[in-house]
Amino acid sequence: MPTDIEIAQAATLQKILPLAQRTLDLPEEALSPYGHYKAKLGLEHLPALSGRKNGHLILVTAISPTPPGEGKTTTTVGLGDGLNHIGKKAMICLREPSLGPCFGMKGGAAGGGRAQIVPMEDINLHFTGDFHAIALANNLLAALIDNHIHHGNALGIDVRRISWRRVVDMNDRALRDITVALGGPGNGYPRQDGFDIVVASEVMAILCLATSLEDLKRRLGNIVIGSTADKRPVTARELKADGAMAALLKDALAPNLVQTLEGNLAFVHGGPFANIAHGCNSVIATQTALKLADYVVTEAGFGADLGAEKFMDIKCRKAGLQPSCAVIVATVRALKYHGGADAKKPGSDTLQALEIGLANLGRHIENVHQHYGLPAIVSINRFDADTAEEIALIEAYCQARGVRCVLATHWAEGGAGAAELARAVVAQCEQGGACAASLYEDALPLADKIRAIASKVYRAGEVVFEPKADAQLQDWQNAGWGQLPVCIAKTQYSFSSDASLRGAPEGHVLRVREVRLAAGAEFVVAICGDIMTMPGLPKVPSAERIDVDAQGRISGLF
Amino acid sequence: MPTDIEIAQAATLQKILPLAQRTLDLPEEALSPYGHYKAKLGLEHLPALSGRKNGHLILVTAISPTPPGEGKTTTTVGLGDGLNHIGKKAMICLREPSLGPCFGMKGGAAGGGRAQIVPMEDINLHFTGDFHAIALANNLLAALIDNHIHHGNALGIDVRRISWRRVVDMNDRALRDITVALGGPGNGYPRQDGFDIVVASEVMAILCLATSLEDLKRRLGNIVIGSTADKRPVTARELKADGAMAALLKDALAPNLVQTLEGNLAFVHGGPFANIAHGCNSVIATQTALKLADYVVTEAGFGADLGAEKFMDIKCRKAGLQPSCAVIVATVRALKYHGGADAKKPGSDTLQALEIGLANLGRHIENVHQHYGLPAIVSINRFDADTAEEIALIEAYCQARGVRCVLATHWAEGGAGAAELARAVVAQCEQGGACAASLYEDALPLADKIRAIASKVYRAGEVVFEPKADAQLQDWQNAGWGQLPVCIAKTQYSFSSDASLRGAPEGHVLRVREVRLAAGAEFVVAICGDIMTMPGLPKVPSAERIDVDAQGRISGLF
Repeated sequence: MPTDIEIAQAATLQKILPLAQRTLDLPEEALSPYGHYKAKLGLEHLPALSGRKNGHLILVTAISPTPPGEGKTTTTVGLGDGLNHIGKKAMICLREPSLGPCFGMKGGAAGGGRAQIVPMEDINLHFTGDFHAIALANNLLAALIDNHIHHGNALGIDVRRISWRRVVDMNDRALRDITVALGGPGNGYPRQDGFDIVVASEVMAILCLATSLEDLKRRLGNIVIGSTADKRPVTARELKADGAMAALLKDALAPNLVQTLEGNLAFVHGGPFANIAHGCNSVIATQTALKLADYVVTEAGFGADLGAEKFMDIKCRKAGLQPSCAVIVATVRALKYHGGADAKKPGSDTLQALEIGLANLGRHIENVHQHYGLPAIVSINRFDADTAEEIALIEAYCQARGVRCVLATHWAEGGAGAAELARAVVAQCEQGGACAASLYEDALPLADKIRAIASKVYRAGEVVFEPKADAQLQDWQNAGWGQLPVCIAKTQYSFSSDASLRGAPEGHVLRVREVRLAAGAEFVVAICGDIMTMPGLPKVPSAERIDVDAQGRISGLF
Repeated sequence: MPTDIEIAQAATLQKILPLAQRTLDLPEEALSPYGHYKAKLGLEHLPALSGRKNGHLILVTAISPTPPGEGKTTTTVGLGDGLNHIGKKAMICLREPSLGPCFGMKGGAAGGGRAQIVPMEDINLHFTGDFHAIALANNLLAALIDNHIHHGNALGIDVRRISWRRVVDMNDRALRDITVALGGPGNGYPRQDGFDIVVASEVMAILCLATSLEDLKRRLGNIVIGSTADKRPVTARELKADGAMAALLKDALAPNLVQTLEGNLAFVHGGPFANIAHGCNSVIATQTALKLADYVVTEAGFGADLGAEKFMDIKCRKAGLQPSCAVIVATVRALKYHGGADAKKPGSDTLQALEIGLANLGRHIENVHQHYGLPAIVSINRFDADTAEEIALIEAYCQARGVRCVLATHWAEGGAGAAELARAVVAQCEQGGACAASLYEDALPLADKIRAIASKVYRAGEVVFEPKADAQLQDWQNAGWGQLPVCIAKTQYSFSSDASLRGAPEGHVLRVREVRLAAGAEFVVAICGDIMTMPGLPKVPSAERIDVDAQGRISGLF
């Protein structure tokens, strides 16, 4: 079997401008090319689409992630191709992959097998430069903060209370914890600082939630970068940073168009972290796709406890989006892992493990139905090794819960392999029955919002706030940020905050260690457990293998 | 008078693909669009041009820079337009501006008035992403260094002897001197470090001197990142970083095409520092332009003592380029400044000051003739306040030295204002007489190369090496790097290393404080005086004024 990059490089791509004009019925001037196979849809063209009716929005989510992986992006691409395959007008909305991790361990994030978006090297490397623009906007604000202090600190910023960090799109552990401004008076006031990876920047979350250039600028101005000694929050607007940051982000805010291996169109735009941020592609891309296609397939990060919850409670609620249904991706192997199987434990790979592990799927189905108000379809990302007995077990489990379960083979077969899934999705969309819901009202106090998610979605028995976090939430509540949604950062591997608790644990304790205010993105982050905002490289990083030949052909990216 | 950005935004641009195909006789597939007004010429197309005959190469250089500025970029653009205006097929080759300084004090670097390249906002901000790619390639190597040490340090890199710094395209003084890898064993081994601005990265110099993707990768592999405790140099190749770095730079190596306000084509590609690097646009862009046009106008950074010397001794020698003549730009105001006039000294702005200041111009003319072997033409960038008497004085001075002196008004009038300059340049090119020379042979020892530049070009009386620098040069000489050219980093404001010595000082002492090896770029840097590789922001940075409106129109960039 050829590798993903080999499949992608062997494909004959269509020029994106004529493809997009023809398929989406767009005027020529609406599209701006980036090479022949990538384009941006100009923001100025979006108002002209507002009269069109919205298509159906389909969320692809998954069981709790496992080491072998589930194939959520692959399913998103496969389902998009599958819908087109059965004659529907469908688009795909994905996040942009982060460049840094490509040089570490993680592969690219453009799907896989016959279900990929292309050109995969471009998408995985610089793409259209959005992340670079986000990094610079973030770092301009950082430079303006230290510069303001250096030149007299008229705003009285407390150097011990600056929360705004610098960012770089690289896995670089040496930058996690640094001291800056050493070397004497010419270099400013020394302080402790650190770099996050770009996708962790609040600017990324803002770009993904903004609905227009004006809204982007307003949100950038609202960013709280730290506080004065008497704890008055200081904003980016007070530093007069919002205009220049927005100028840097003007093009990045326009959604990017690429194609699948089958020539179907995908918006690939924005890529916020799925722990300290909401983990979905941009609101602008999703809203635009809904005007351009009858079916829009999108995914949210991690499992349905994190990604789907944030998709509903942060993205959809704030942007007024109404999904029609959710597809929950699972694999036999991953379900067995939730039931205790492990590649390192020979013989653990049993039918019984599968039976136990199905509880994880069941819990996600229940949440999607009861708490997010969405009809769910289970999609089994099929592997050759899966037995008929195993499949039958999953099907019976789903049937008992009144949920359709479909086998999908898009990885090996492309859209044709997801045709049945596509038909199930269309049937569900036509049947209706979605009643997209939020877990909580805006007015609910911040701490209670966290408790609502913990009890309903995670099935925690108790939420414990560190005293500092508790006091901080109260301060923000009093300062007028109480109406914001919350964004919980916890391990993706378990419903609990303990990564080793597989399956469907309940009654566990959720410990809120720290809270952060994303006043521009308009949510409050509750950190439960250790969340790494700057990854490191492994002992043998992929970078050692990545190469380009004299003809410009890249290898080693996967 | 409208501002530069207002003029640029009022212009009607031609779509770059048809313009370039038509003008340059290129096949459609040779060009890759970045939006409608920027394009890259694919590297894979360059070999097809090799059979074409080279056009004339014209270097635009200047007197020693002064606070009021001379207008070198404006003259480069104006001359390119002027040559087209008189019916010649001419192209322009410029450096890409650095984004960071746009948010500080410095304006953009796309020319000015009616002599600009457009789209100026794009060129000054992200452009086609080349600098972002360079920054990441640089920072990938940095991350791989610390990662290698963290995971056991098989190469035995001495953390006290790492010379490779990180970079960001931002004026950020707080990053000049930092400590990294604090916070415990998970974050690596703490050490002192720092960030430079992107244009100071050796990767930038490498990109600008590489002649192909293969040559780029070879040079990246040769980068010396530091040494072991016993002073053995460690290269990027040993860290297996070269392939991934080249993959990141694959698109950045392809030259960028834009147009002037008059619809003439310009390559804008690469932008190395003019002090610690050679300060010229890329070899690939210049070589390609020479195949596509009969006249190619390019500029080199700072005055002719620095920029033109490096253009000849580093870029042209290494790339086998043969310029036909040099244009030396001056203004009445700047010449008066060299004669002691000063905006802050009322009444100092006299004809006598002009007379004294002409010595600076005279010295540069002499160097260009005698040491670089190029016929020179003096171009006076004319201002309304210049009197006939002042102009006559300059003309007489040039005439006495057998040099043509032309008045140019491209700033106000575009190409038509540089028509006379264009005719003078054409006459000079047709007349021949250039005998492009290097100041020294490859075989001359490194220290003697520095002495040769100091005595011939700077007219220093003596060169003093700090003992450490002296020993270091000897080490490199012994290690086989003795054949490299040298790149002197000193103040641009004087022939000496003392910025306050205006005019044409001689007999001064050049003190070589520090030397650095750029083994990938293939030169040795001699640092004389304080050279800042990370600028800071002023008290009121331009960022505060830069804005973008709801329609995406940028303001405050100038």
